[in-house]
Amino acid sequence: MEQASLKLLLLNPNTTRSLTERMAETAGAVLPAGVVLDTATAPRGFPYISNRSEALVAGAVTLEMLAARPCTPSAAIVAAFGDPGIRAARDLFPFPVIGVAEAAMHSAAMLGDRFAIVAFTQRMRGWYQDCVEEVGLERRFAGFRAPAQSDERLGTVQTDLRDALLECIEACHIHDGADVVITAGAPLAGFADIARGATKPILIDPVVAAVHQAVAIAALRKPYANGLGAWHDPKTSEGLDPALADQFAGKGSDRVADPPTLLRPGGRSGP
Amino acid sequence: MEQASLKLLLLNPNTTRSLTERMAETAGAVLPAGVVLDTATAPRGFPYISNRSEALVAGAVTLEMLAARPCTPSAAIVAAFGDPGIRAARDLFPFPVIGVAEAAMHSAAMLGDRFAIVAFTQRMRGWYQDCVEEVGLERRFAGFRAPAQSDERLGTVQTDLRDALLECIEACHIHDGADVVITAGAPLAGFADIARGATKPILIDPVVAAVHQAVAIAALRKPYANGLGAWHDPKTSEGLDPALADQFAGKGSDRVADPPTLLRPGGRSGP
Amino acid sequence: MEQASLKLLLLNPNTTRSLTERMAETAGAVLPAGVVLDTATAPRGFPYISNRSEALVAGAVTLEMLAARPCTPSAAIVAAFGDPGIRAARDLFPFPVIGVAEAAMHSAAMLGDRFAIVAFTQRMRGWYQDCVEEVGLERRFAGFRAPAQSDERLGTVQTDLRDALLECIEACHIHDGADVVITAGAPLAGFADIARGATKPILIDPVVAAVHQAVAIAALRKPYANGLGAWHDPKTSEGLDPALADQFAGKGSDRVADPPTLLRPGGRSGP
Amino acid sequence: MEQASLKLLLLNPNTTRSLTERMAETAGAVLPAGVVLDTATAPRGFPYISNRSEALVAGAVTLEMLAARPCTPSAAIVAAFGDPGIRAARDLFPFPVIGVAEAAMHSAAMLGDRFAIVAFTQRMRGWYQDCVEEVGLERRFAGFRAPAQSDERLGTVQTDLRDALLECIEACHIHDGADVVITAGAPLAGFADIARGATKPILIDPVVAAVHQAVAIAALRKPYANGLGAWHDPKTSEGLDPALADQFAGKGSDRVADPPTLLRPGGRSGP
Amino acid sequence: MEQASLKLLLLNPNTTRSLTERMAETAGAVLPAGVVLDTATAPRGFPYISNRSEALVAGAVTLEMLAARPCTPSAAIVAAFGDPGIRAARDLFPFPVIGVAEAAMHSAAMLGDRFAIVAFTQRMRGWYQDCVEEVGLERRFAGFRAPAQSDERLGTVQTDLRDALLECIEACHIHDGADVVITAGAPLAGFADIARGATKPILIDPVVAAVHQAVAIAALRKPYANGLGAWHDPKTSEGLDPALADQFAGKGSDRVADPPTLLRPGGRSGP
Amino acid sequence: MEQASLKLLLLNPNTTRSLTERMAETAGAVLPAGVVLDTATAPRGFPYISNRSEALVAGAVTLEMLAARPCTPSAAIVAAFGDPGIRAARDLFPFPVIGVAEAAMHSAAMLGDRFAIVAFTQRMRGWYQDCVEEVGLERRFAGFRAPAQSDERLGTVQTDLRDALLECIEACHIHDGADVVITAGAPLAGFADIARGATKPILIDPVVAAVHQAVAIAALRKPYANGLGAWHDPKTSEGLDPALADQFAGKGSDRVADPPTLLRPGGRSGP
Repeated sequence: MEQASLKLLLLNPNTTRSLTERMAETAGAVLPAGVVLDTATAPRGFPYISNRSEALVAGAVTLEMLAARPCTPSAAIVAAFGDPGIRAARDLFPFPVIGVAEAAMHSAAMLGDRFAIVAFTQRMRGWYQDCVEEVGLERRFAGFRAPAQSDERLGTVQTDLRDALLECIEACHIHDGADVVITAGAPLAGFADIARGATKPILIDPVVAAVHQAVAIAALRKPYANGLGAWHDPKTSEGLDPALADQFAGKGSDRVADPPTLLRPGGRSGP
Repeated sequence: MEQASLKLLLLNPNTTRSLTERMAETAGAVLPAGVVLDTATAPRGFPYISNRSEALVAGAVTLEMLAARPCTPSAAIVAAFGDPGIRAARDLFPFPVIGVAEAAMHSAAMLGDRFAIVAFTQRMRGWYQDCVEEVGLERRFAGFRAPAQSDERLGTVQTDLRDALLECIEACHIHDGADVVITAGAPLAGFADIARGATKPILIDPVVAAVHQAVAIAALRKPYANGLGAWHDPKTSEGLDPALADQFAGKGSDRVADPPTLLRPGGRSGP
Repeated sequence: MEQASLKLLLLNPNTTRSLTERMAETAGAVLPAGVVLDTATAPRGFPYISNRSEALVAGAVTLEMLAARPCTPSAAIVAAFGDPGIRAARDLFPFPVIGVAEAAMHSAAMLGDRFAIVAFTQRMRGWYQDCVEEVGLERRFAGFRAPAQSDERLGTVQTDLRDALLECIEACHIHDGADVVITAGAPLAGFADIARGATKPILIDPVVAAVHQAVAIAALRKPYANGLGAWHDPKTSEGLDPALADQFAGKGSDRVADPPTLLRPGGRSGP
Repeated sequence: MEQASLKLLLLNPNTTRSLTERMAETAGAVLPAGVVLDTATAPRGFPYISNRSEALVAGAVTLEMLAARPCTPSAAIVAAFGDPGIRAARDLFPFPVIGVAEAAMHSAAMLGDRFAIVAFTQRMRGWYQDCVEEVGLERRFAGFRAPAQSDERLGTVQTDLRDALLECIEACHIHDGADVVITAGAPLAGFADIARGATKPILIDPVVAAVHQAVAIAALRKPYANGLGAWHDPKTSEGLDPALADQFAGKGSDRVADPPTLLRPGGRSGP
Repeated sequence: MEQASLKLLLLNPNTTRSLTERMAETAGAVLPAGVVLDTATAPRGFPYISNRSEALVAGAVTLEMLAARPCTPSAAIVAAFGDPGIRAARDLFPFPVIGVAEAAMHSAAMLGDRFAIVAFTQRMRGWYQDCVEEVGLERRFAGFRAPAQSDERLGTVQTDLRDALLECIEACHIHDGADVVITAGAPLAGFADIARGATKPILIDPVVAAVHQAVAIAALRKPYANGLGAWHDPKTSEGLDPALADQFAGKGSDRVADPPTLLRPGGRSGP
Repeated sequence: MEQASLKLLLLNPNTTRSLTERMAETAGAVLPAGVVLDTATAPRGFPYISNRSEALVAGAVTLEMLAARPCTPSAAIVAAFGDPGIRAARDLFPFPVIGVAEAAMHSAAMLGDRFAIVAFTQRMRGWYQDCVEEVGLERRFAGFRAPAQSDERLGTVQTDLRDALLECIEACHIHDGADVVITAGAPLAGFADIARGATKPILIDPVVAAVHQAVAIAALRKPYANGLGAWHDPKTSEGLDPALADQFAGKGSDRVADPPTLLRPGGRSGP
């Protein structure tokens, strides 16, 4: 199978370009041969999403970003832990959309037995736990840990909180029984590489996991590249971003008009 | 306790004004003495939300509608089954925000033992089941039923599908063990009254349930009316609807600057 | 809608009249306009129910108290956390029966994201956890806390344990992620008002929640006031309290003989 | 180990003596050597408990029957599917109390992979499902089936509904994947023997299971026969059945005053 | 019912004969009258299984040991906590196969409300938790505790860690709410007797529980002693242990050729 | 990142070489550039594993096959739905081990919302459901379907049951709400390609999913290729397959002696 044609689109639902760059760098370092990466930064929204209400707004912006895509990617990556908008995007777009959190969790479940999540601040606890529930892997989830200190300088948490983060990782292993630990949140992108030599559990960087999962899922979705597998029926709207409105109206440039129908029940398929 | 000052704000996240009117009529008919009702219809979005991807957009629009409120309501009702945006809204606004679906389910759980949901189309099945899980009451949930026919004329489903809907209600009771049935979806507003004489389980109209729950929850939240109980820390944004941006920035007119702090851990409270 | 005719019946399944009075005072202070409150104290049983075996006896006494009611209330409130007898009562009586624990939990789920329970003694832990499971909201439950001290003087726990209780409330918020805390157990009636200014999460007094929920549920149940919605088929008994025996025999004064039947399967309905 | 001293007390929480006799006959036929059986029929209550509200009353009567026991049994069996009162009884009495439903389910879980429940009427569905949840074995539960016909003559259901019951048993196996089927309800006592030759899954008669489990559990509890392991702290009461009041007051003849205490935290142990 | 013919076969899936002897001694001390005990030690495998990968190998060895049985036992006991091979064995052999862990947990659930597990080392935590999930009783499970020290001398842990183990047992009770505690792992066989006088919860020795449960289950399975109730269809194999290959091929000496068939769907049964 | 060095080892735990060839053909057709595939067929065991007891034996054989590997693969694929031995293998070997069932399920969860499983025979139902539970994704699982006919000729099921299988796939979509369907079992290898044009849900061939997931997981595990991340402590054994015994003894050729240790609690790490 040729992978030369694979194009990944990494979307940063945050408006901070330097986060996009850091994540692109992390992703670029592990890009398989023949895979190219395109990136986009949220044109509107928040510098750094850190809770559910911001994630709702960011999820809608993510749909707009996907609708405004320059071309149809092999797979899109939503690069904010919490995966804003992915379930909606998956119903709407005829290409795979992968979240970094789900990619990390599903990978973790194939790398070990129980995974934990380490973040740089306690504030994420509730939202990240919701995220595990939404993915549906709570039975494999060993818990969440973050340093007690609350450091707000996103750019330097990896050095400021280094020891506290390493202790969290070890504690996930020793006290919570995790053999895999996910280092979550864009400010921790790349920290897994730093921590790897100093801690025992297998570490997963969500962006790295998302790159590899996006390649895998793109391959599995490829036979449906002509639009099969997208469920949304055309719907008119008013006042939405024009590209997104087109997508909802079934006028996305890459959308297929007539999926095959074997049976025609009253249920989901249409006339 | 005086209720004369209670003002409910019913938000229709759909753009169809006639649905707002029908729901306002249903709500108005059961409004307790001394409670007034204000309504708003989504200024942008979809005529009728019918799945997860539309609900995501509608959820963000709901936040904008709440931010653009003319005054602070005693409680806001998000009047679309599926409750778009309520968890985010609850974190962000200093007044209670109630969804019609959650109001119906929590009420059902106090009226009987197991509740079922009847909708006018099978298309809602997956999304409404997600909604039960999000509310967290799946252990009290007896199942979802809808007529096999797929009737698209929202305005006449109550007459077109009358017999099929009554049969669904009875089947929820007899085969699924439900003693309470929720008639879900704006096109069924008021149908509970019609069906009541002809079926055995207790019927709940979500809009009616939401009115009564909004009054109850407003009373319970009243001691926090000065802004206590809202969790969102101020956050700057760019490109958002101005009123919503203000809300996220902590500049909502009715927001309290300084919630009390007993303990000051690294966790959720701030400087 | 007129509420002038609403009558709530608050039943204390404990035999201690001073607890009834304290709870009636708490309830009276939040009674909506046009709602009247009647109370009853258990004629037999325990001064203060504090576990499952006492709750079983109290549940049966609750049925007797409901059967001996002077008139049909708009809704009855079973005013002991743990809600003895409510599921049985709901099958048997043609008016709504609300427990203070379920009222608090369902309200909490509409006021915030995750709720915790604080009690005045560790002894309640297992029983209260059972209660959360029976209500079915364990996925929204952030945990139980109580002071380590075991103070037996029910009348003075609010002052004796004030600081320890406040610390429990804050710990539920900071360590367990609860944004709503229920202050459970009759000896804590009214403590939410005291603690409100000193702690961050939204506090719920179960008796207060029950008053508001009883009004809401009474309104929703009103169309069934003629007896529809009660499931129990007449059954003879021997040796029971006469009023309760009458209720089981279908001879309750307010019982309807013939509920409507649309379909007549082998299942629940039938001659 | 000598079993000669084992005495089982089979309590029928129904008031119908002929049911006691039938169950005693079923139990007697499988009594291990050296085990004697005593029986008691509820002095008050219902001829045949068939739902939750009746079970609540029967549960309280069960406590009275246990308090009025002529001697301390090696183990007591509560012989009504639904196990009224067992959790309360277990806290209160210093000997094991086993329910026929839990005995059947735990045995089923050791005999096969997934168990189903077959009853003689659909009316039991909700209550029996609750019972599976209370035991905590829903993950091993393959479902409930009963004949569609609703036959009220308890005495002759085994012959009247023979074929329909056999079909239910087979359907549990073929369609629901059960390899063990529990024949539930006193009117089906002994039916497992009849059905055994004609159906494929392993059949369990709850009374038979309870006899064998009671012997097993009595042996495991024996080292605690001097009262260790009963958790209830003495509590005064008023208006209760005198023997039951004595039991609650810690004056049961066979109760031990002073259980050992290793640690003395604020929690459950006392001064 | 005569028990004189009951023969239990206790299989130690570990290769350490002294463990077999210790467990046989523990079992022998509680053997009911008329029950005889046979034992077998794994001919190959590990001295002491302590994790999932070793348990997989031990599970296959357990099948070989059962296939090589000298006679058909009334019931077989797999005497290693974790119960290697029991679900497979139950499908394959026409007599009951009981694991010591499941026997302890099901017994615990009938002796009290919530059970905990205490082991002699933290290393067992993950594997034992898996075991609770496989049995399906996690809702009754209060947690796992083990001494922080890691003592490897299996023969002397009961004396070396005595105090730490007693503290674990009490902590399960006081902090985790367990009223029953299982002392798990062959090196703790008999420790329940030692700890009984010094701690408050009811203690269960898994080997003792398994003896009593094996007698109970053997009695319940007895009507199927002619081979009914075994589900495995004959299957050829190559390279397996000859006795096990025979068992899989349906040539076990005690296997019945023709189970009865009432209905013959496409599903599980067949010609 | 160079993938040229990636070597996948596909292990068929069945003894039928033609199944290995068919699966190798399916895998080979989707092999990314630079990835090579090696295969192995079980040297002993069953022609086609079809239940839990056979899977236990096959799981132990899988460990032997992995121990006897000619070289250390980048990742091993256990190519039998049900994934025999993977959790044990993952603890024991210092390279990733992926099961085809888990690979299909995790991929499905990123491709859509709810997945179903279609097999060629009803006999697999219980075992495959167990498999979903073990993976931990039951909340995303929409159900299992198989043709009612029981066709035993493994080689021709794809043509013999073509229409029935297509109907199952559509029914999973229309009635069960699945948007992704896994075609499970080696005899269906390649059927997803056939069915793709004729049915609406996204189809997953487990072998294809496993190839792509193995590449992804191998990349994520690569930083641990020197043996970090393997948890098993050396253990002696007797009578096992010599290569497997060496692996358990920590003498596998590719095993690292000294994993890093940051903290040294009593728990898992330590000499």
